[in-house]
Amino acid sequence: MRIALVPFNPVVGDIYHNTAMLKNQIESLISQSVDFAIFPELAIGGYPPKDLLDKPYFIADIQEALSCLIPLSRNISILTGFVHAEHSRGKRKLYNAAAFLRNGTIEAIATKNLLPTYDVFDEHRYFDHKDAVTTISLGNLSFGISICEDLWFETNPKYRFDPIEKLAANNIDYLINIAASPYEESKLLTRFQLLTSIPKKYNIGVMYVNQLGGNDSIVFDGGALFLDKTGTLCAQKPQFQSSPLIYDMNTPSSPLELNTLSPDDELIQALTLGIRDYVHKCKFQKVVIGLSGGIDSAVTAVLAVKALGKENVIGVSMPSRFSSEGSKTDAQLLAENLEIEFLTIPIESILEGFLDSLTPYFSDKPWDITEENIQARIRGSILMALSNKHGWMVLTTGNKSELAVGYCTLYGDMCGGLAVISDVFKTRVYSIARTLNRERTVIPPNSLSKPPSAELRHNQTDQDSLPHYDILDTILKAYIEEYKERDEIVQMGFDKETVLKVIQLVDRSEYKRKQAAPGLKVSRKAFGEGRRIPIVQNYLPLDHCNTSLLRK
Amino acid sequence: MRIALVPFNPVVGDIYHNTAMLKNQIESLISQSVDFAIFPELAIGGYPPKDLLDKPYFIADIQEALSCLIPLSRNISILTGFVHAEHSRGKRKLYNAAAFLRNGTIEAIATKNLLPTYDVFDEHRYFDHKDAVTTISLGNLSFGISICEDLWFETNPKYRFDPIEKLAANNIDYLINIAASPYEESKLLTRFQLLTSIPKKYNIGVMYVNQLGGNDSIVFDGGALFLDKTGTLCAQKPQFQSSPLIYDMNTPSSPLELNTLSPDDELIQALTLGIRDYVHKCKFQKVVIGLSGGIDSAVTAVLAVKALGKENVIGVSMPSRFSSEGSKTDAQLLAENLEIEFLTIPIESILEGFLDSLTPYFSDKPWDITEENIQARIRGSILMALSNKHGWMVLTTGNKSELAVGYCTLYGDMCGGLAVISDVFKTRVYSIARTLNRERTVIPPNSLSKPPSAELRHNQTDQDSLPHYDILDTILKAYIEEYKERDEIVQMGFDKETVLKVIQLVDRSEYKRKQAAPGLKVSRKAFGEGRRIPIVQNYLPLDHCNTSLLRK
Repeated sequence: MRIALVPFNPVVGDIYHNTAMLKNQIESLISQSVDFAIFPELAIGGYPPKDLLDKPYFIADIQEALSCLIPLSRNISILTGFVHAEHSRGKRKLYNAAAFLRNGTIEAIATKNLLPTYDVFDEHRYFDHKDAVTTISLGNLSFGISICEDLWFETNPKYRFDPIEKLAANNIDYLINIAASPYEESKLLTRFQLLTSIPKKYNIGVMYVNQLGGNDSIVFDGGALFLDKTGTLCAQKPQFQSSPLIYDMNTPSSPLELNTLSPDDELIQALTLGIRDYVHKCKFQKVVIGLSGGIDSAVTAVLAVKALGKENVIGVSMPSRFSSEGSKTDAQLLAENLEIEFLTIPIESILEGFLDSLTPYFSDKPWDITEENIQARIRGSILMALSNKHGWMVLTTGNKSELAVGYCTLYGDMCGGLAVISDVFKTRVYSIARTLNRERTVIPPNSLSKPPSAELRHNQTDQDSLPHYDILDTILKAYIEEYKERDEIVQMGFDKETVLKVIQLVDRSEYKRKQAAPGLKVSRKAFGEGRRIPIVQNYLPLDHCNTSLLRK
Repeated sequence: MRIALVPFNPVVGDIYHNTAMLKNQIESLISQSVDFAIFPELAIGGYPPKDLLDKPYFIADIQEALSCLIPLSRNISILTGFVHAEHSRGKRKLYNAAAFLRNGTIEAIATKNLLPTYDVFDEHRYFDHKDAVTTISLGNLSFGISICEDLWFETNPKYRFDPIEKLAANNIDYLINIAASPYEESKLLTRFQLLTSIPKKYNIGVMYVNQLGGNDSIVFDGGALFLDKTGTLCAQKPQFQSSPLIYDMNTPSSPLELNTLSPDDELIQALTLGIRDYVHKCKFQKVVIGLSGGIDSAVTAVLAVKALGKENVIGVSMPSRFSSEGSKTDAQLLAENLEIEFLTIPIESILEGFLDSLTPYFSDKPWDITEENIQARIRGSILMALSNKHGWMVLTTGNKSELAVGYCTLYGDMCGGLAVISDVFKTRVYSIARTLNRERTVIPPNSLSKPPSAELRHNQTDQDSLPHYDILDTILKAYIEEYKERDEIVQMGFDKETVLKVIQLVDRSEYKRKQAAPGLKVSRKAFGEGRRIPIVQNYLPLDHCNTSLLRK
């Protein structure tokens, strides 16, 4: 039996396009004598479709699209993710489901049991669950069908039973898992450990296929694999590759080592795919990036060139009275190295216009963040004007450290359609930069070595107002990704004042992040839709003093 | 027995402040010889606390805060919403719960059974449920405890049992419902109908109390009521009033009519409370508003004055070469009528600066939306500069119709901390304006009568590019709030081209709304966190032509 696992890249909501692609793919697999083609979770509607699922037409169209695939199943068996609808108490219930098509009919429908409702996932918002598992037969083999989160029973005390255990109790030969599992750092290994534990525990083989591609903030890293019942890896399609993994079960194979990328290479691939799919799926071709001469915009530009080609990236330098000569030449050198179009639009005269008009209303207050923000907003407006006039998408260049503490200007450097590295801490941006320079020095060494600066006043550096990035990033990671509080972070060995200041900055910048461009999620906890902190919230851990007052 | 129902207004996350307020309130009720004080859902932590619930310290502090209230229960029985934590499989499980405190101890903990996970609600993200109900006894009466959504079994086929039915089967005398139910138009009547159906069905009385106040986008309208077992309204605290409803069960009362506000008055109160609480809970005192002379900014300014006082509202006129004389005088007249501070900052010279700098890069393309957006962005930057320099919050003035079709400039007129009327359609804005002018003409009649215009080019009116607002708003309501699709809306009697254009505009403007300021939710379906549509999504209903192609 020849089985194909297809890391499919749908466009969310584009049922016609996705179904046509599925059809092409299936026809191609038929011509390659594949017996059983397996597509990821929600292949027809894309993932995550979000509130499109509230549209009755959308649900009806998914059923229609599925029915268009049925005739193909006379020549090949098909398993694909879709949205299944049933009625109960006069109302529609939806299931995140897999349809098994064979011999020109829908032979089985499996529904997802564990509905992730955390981080970027909202499946309880849309789907119901049946607490039942589905097995199918093909040839003389029996397969248990599971969908993505069904694997992860152990991780969440809210889950009431383990679908894999229940499937394994049904005498299956193989567990199939069709997934739409977003990329995050080192997740491939976590998945692999989980998947290889299944043969060991239940003496069954495993087939896994993941969705591929970027959809808004989420990047699916694709990948497929085939484990025999001893847990040996027999076949793998590495991350980020779109061609199907075709495996002939009758041909003996030698055991494989898991194909992995280095952490930086993996991250670079994820960001590149995220840019390419977001820009193209938004139907843009070119992007424009403000180049400051700093490391963040340099890394963003290099990634954009990798994603879209050098002819589709425009760099803009927007110097002010505070821009150092080095910054201007670093920006230009980067553009030359990348061979991208490069514009220089000074902001000085516009800045003077703003200051002339506004100063009478500043009540003689001294130069402060106001004037710094005006510069950033002029630059944002220039990039948006180029975007409006030429149809280029603006990519923003802020990193996670800046966005965390609000070291960025709303409506200024935060302007743009996609925040490429907003989930990458500053220290990691340096690491990626070095990796990107590995084969050829693209990013000017000066951008890597000089002290980071926003250059919004004379001799400014980031460290005037922020702790050093190695300290800052460690505190931020503890606070944002590990939910540690003040005292716990101090106990990690940091100065109490510094920790308090960082936490305050993070909490007080929530309003900025709420209006930020969507950013590519590559970590366990990115800003954006997966992290839902109220703007108005005054949480500070209670201390003894507070508690005593309350007990009085 | 004297019972108090308290429409409590907590600050999300501010456990110390909320607990201190609860304590004060309870002590005051003790002095008024109240026997039983009932507070709303999640009174201690505020609602919605969102991902604060992922912080272990936050959960521990809520338990600590509850324990601080226990001693008070020696003098009064207390029922209050809080977050209850239990452990299962080595992990923490959370419950949206109510604690019944009596005689210096926690006598019962009731947990919410139906967890709303739709629109702005994400309770499955955080909470588990026990499928069990809790009753308590006090004097010779028995009370069933329910929490908000527990009332709404019939509305959702995903809900597996009806907690009210189960409670009523326990021989209770009264059902208590503690709620955090957001305001939306005519919801008071819906709630009232639902509540009065309970005595009729089960022959039990009902006590209901709702949270009060604004938290980010959500406005809780408060309100409390007491129904006897015949369904007669015995006591009511109207919406938007903060004092407790104290009811003596031993004193016979005459039946009341439900106290309601007119739709416009209700909406005005909700928006006013939303502004006041957002601004104050963000620790701002003053707001600044761009006054265009149009109806949207006028209504926003009047509401801001109602919410914050005239001394805390600054109006700014920012005329350009396209501003009509009428607009400038209308803005000034409004400011005079409101007696607010009024600044005039022309944008012409700044606009010239931008055009001089940018024109060389515009490839001789004609004047278009680019130049219009530059004007809006200059105005946004001016308001933000005033905000930065003086610590005033910018209120944005866009209405729901504009935001729906993207008739607004990202980083321009969309700049601001709170979008006051972003959930109010343009036609309704006119209606509110007339209501606000009822007692005294505050909004210049000219702002009401002239054709709406963005005044970003000569002789522009909104209707150059949009259908008339009465048509537009009806289509938008059908598409956004009722999930109707193209053909269904055409069948309502609209031109097909118009419907298609409006739908396209809505879908293509998603990227703008993702970066919009938080807006006050006052309708069934507001933009923002309760409406989750992907940016990249190409959903269009399948038509015959598409389906035939797929079936080939």
